[in-house]
Amino acid sequence: MKQPIISGSSRIRRTPYSKRVEEAGVKSYSVYNHMLLPTVFDTLENDYHHLKRAVQVWDVSVERQIEIIGPDATKILQMVTPRDISKMEDDQCYYIPMVDKYGYMINDPVAVKLEKNRYWISIADSDVIYYFKGLAEGMGLNVNIFEPDVNILSIQGPKSKILIEKMFGKEISELKFFRHGKVNFNGKEMIVARSGWSHQMCYEVYADGSEYGQDMWDKFFSIGKDFDVRAGCPNLIERIESGLLSYGNDINGNNTPYEAGLGKFLSSGVSKGCLAYEILQSKMDPQRLIKPIEITGEPIKPITYSLKVSNADGEVVGQISSAAWSPDFKVNVAIGMIDREYWKQKNNLFLNITEDDRRKIFIKDKFWS
Amino acid sequence: MKQPIISGSSRIRRTPYSKRVEEAGVKSYSVYNHMLLPTVFDTLENDYHHLKRAVQVWDVSVERQIEIIGPDATKILQMVTPRDISKMEDDQCYYIPMVDKYGYMINDPVAVKLEKNRYWISIADSDVIYYFKGLAEGMGLNVNIFEPDVNILSIQGPKSKILIEKMFGKEISELKFFRHGKVNFNGKEMIVARSGWSHQMCYEVYADGSEYGQDMWDKFFSIGKDFDVRAGCPNLIERIESGLLSYGNDINGNNTPYEAGLGKFLSSGVSKGCLAYEILQSKMDPQRLIKPIEITGEPIKPITYSLKVSNADGEVVGQISSAAWSPDFKVNVAIGMIDREYWKQKNNLFLNITEDDRRKIFIKDKFWS
Repeated sequence: MKQPIISGSSRIRRTPYSKRVEEAGVKSYSVYNHMLLPTVFDTLENDYHHLKRAVQVWDVSVERQIEIIGPDATKILQMVTPRDISKMEDDQCYYIPMVDKYGYMINDPVAVKLEKNRYWISIADSDVIYYFKGLAEGMGLNVNIFEPDVNILSIQGPKSKILIEKMFGKEISELKFFRHGKVNFNGKEMIVARSGWSHQMCYEVYADGSEYGQDMWDKFFSIGKDFDVRAGCPNLIERIESGLLSYGNDINGNNTPYEAGLGKFLSSGVSKGCLAYEILQSKMDPQRLIKPIEITGEPIKPITYSLKVSNADGEVVGQISSAAWSPDFKVNVAIGMIDREYWKQKNNLFLNITEDDRRKIFIKDKFWS
Repeated sequence: MKQPIISGSSRIRRTPYSKRVEEAGVKSYSVYNHMLLPTVFDTLENDYHHLKRAVQVWDVSVERQIEIIGPDATKILQMVTPRDISKMEDDQCYYIPMVDKYGYMINDPVAVKLEKNRYWISIADSDVIYYFKGLAEGMGLNVNIFEPDVNILSIQGPKSKILIEKMFGKEISELKFFRHGKVNFNGKEMIVARSGWSHQMCYEVYADGSEYGQDMWDKFFSIGKDFDVRAGCPNLIERIESGLLSYGNDINGNNTPYEAGLGKFLSSGVSKGCLAYEILQSKMDPQRLIKPIEITGEPIKPITYSLKVSNADGEVVGQISSAAWSPDFKVNVAIGMIDREYWKQKNNLFLNITEDDRRKIFIKDKFWS
């Protein structure tokens, strides 16, 4: 079958960079937060090699921002996450599992603190702005919640540091991990954070105002010429190697943060201000957990759908949600959710990729990079 | 440029019918409520002619259901809509503008009453389940809110009545508009409603359980052979002719129900149980309104993005959001939002489709069918 194309629709928003993305030859799109997300430019593998070698500019406008501002901003943010945000500093970003009152994940955003009681929540793919609004309206909280016109460009790859330094100076290129600093672009103050959805060196530029988008893109390409800068996008292979979870793919609304392996962000326990405080306290020992998984045998085609994992008796004991051949590690890398009794099992676990293609798989102790 | 294809992803759910949809030769997809929505099978125009002549089976699983059940179900539903739902009967469906407390639309679902304090909300493209959950949690309402595994097949076109009669009997085929009845399919009780997103004769089968999907599809095709049944999907041309609005395209979170032309559903005024009761009372006379619009001149290519409407002085006085050539009405049909002082204006309004293609447009009194 010919792969269906994606229909144009205002409902699926273009970004300030879409014109440039298309001029750069985007081959396929996904839709994320009602917006276009590029997924391949050259080939998945060529994009991957280039990302790990040079520098890429990613249109990740789909990381929509929810601005929460007002006297109750910190309170409402703490209500929806078990992670303690009380010590967050004004230039800090936190990856926060976001949960409903039953402790199930409804998003896994990065919260960016702009000042006291003012945050941007950089969201994964679900309209959780409605959850904040519903809570605020139901409880009569003193807070304003809206989507600002902010469209992130992510600068990715080993040469991103030098590109960011040329663009914004050393103060920005040397930011610490998950800290942000202020820059001036075309007369507008914006923030840049040392963050991004890869394990390469990376930055996120919070381009504040659609009207700055195309200029920003062009400037990165003009000063990045010497570093072989290219248009890129989150890369399936690289993010599996790095263990970066995709909400909606690897984890979803049926999972707790502990099942998602995010317990490490909750080392001080579940924050008392979280609506799911009591429930999550009883769920710290999950019965299933996100794991790095090696699929043996020949290189596989990318897997972006759910495949059951079975034990030697043919019983389903988990699933794989993302997998691909890793050219660098010369192995098929995968992310999956595995039942507790098999976490240490190195043998006798199987995956039927197709009816005729049965593979042995291994649960790994850690991700590849 | 080659039209980008759509990437596979678990995050963008397939439906119980996707396999059949692809066997039927779907050419393009959209994404709606994190799920695949077919948009063209043959060509937009051929799909249109067939829809108005014969019968089609539409996979509209993307109309996800939100089940609201419990003592406070009617209360929470009334909180989010200005339409009075107190007189809704147990076999009735209501089209309800759904608003936040400021009176702005956050969805325009069909509410299906199943019994006292139990509803399915058949939603347009936004995750408003979070709004219900946020409100319920914030106010401590006694209600359970979740997404049931219901995947609508819509039977569409002039021959849909006879197909439904052959499938489910006369009691169902002769249902009144926006009423539903119970059927038994493969031993499972399900509901069928006389509703659907076209102005042709149509029905919606609320297939209750993914496991029934493929059988249901196959049975409709097997008994529909004599009526030239085909796979179809919501058709841009037909829905513009009929004035069926698309949330996210023609209307969005910046509009009130009155601007969307939905005042007709609020003839008894804004319901007092609605959170936006007071605000909406002050917004009954909108300053801009959804209008049917004729674009003069040669047949246009389909427009699925926003284009500004200007007056003779070049001032922007509105926008067109959906437009296409209508083979039946032999005119370019469009939906747009127009500023109040131009509602009666038949002349001197213009649209720049491209820099070189400037058209005169006319505001119409009503839609074409």
